[in-house]
Amino acid sequence: MKNRDKTPFESQLIDLDDLIHSKIRLAIMTILMSVEKAQFTYLKKLLKTTDGNLSVHLTKLEDAGYISVDKRFVHKRPQTTCKITAKGRNAFERYVDVLEQIIKR
Amino acid sequence: MKNRDKTPFESQLIDLDDLIHSKIRLAIMTILMSVEKAQFTYLKKLLKTTDGNLSVHLTKLEDAGYISVDKRFVHKRPQTTCKITAKGRNAFERYVDVLEQIIKR
Repeated sequence: MKNRDKTPFESQLIDLDDLIHSKIRLAIMTILMSVEKAQFTYLKKLLKTTDGNLSVHLTKLEDAGYISVDKRFVHKRPQTTCKITAKGRNAFERYVDVLEQIIKR
Repeated sequence: MKNRDKTPFESQLIDLDDLIHSKIRLAIMTILMSVEKAQFTYLKKLLKTTDGNLSVHLTKLEDAGYISVDKRFVHKRPQTTCKITAKGRNAFERYVDVLEQIIKR
């Protein structure tokens, strides 16, 4: 919030977090902000995407520390569960701060 | 607005207008929404970008009918003026509708 006053709005737009700004990752993050955790299969269905594509984007978010991905076997079937982290939540909130300014204008 | 109720939010996110979603074009559109018109040199300075890069993105927006670009000589110097069109304004408002939903969640 403090930075917002100092950094010109245009620079903030250009500096929008690319990790979140990609549409599919924005969708993943938006979903994970509103649920405690989400299964891989649930995200895949909601986002109408493929295993491969979803995996790529989840890995990017995981590598950035924005989400945690837990893989385990449940009743002998692999189950992948995703959760937003505190770092991811902060990053998303910073991102949304800029969106709010776009709207206010 | 009617579509909003029918189309799942996740699909709306994935369907966000790519012409606007690119960060530099989002910045250009946001600026042009708030001014009557803007000079090329003004946009270039605000966005801290090059002639070539700005031209590419302005042409994409112009080709989509989202902005009009007027080139003329003023005191023997070329002057390029950009303005948002009604179509651009509508597209931007649809885009912002989805941003608002991201924030509300």
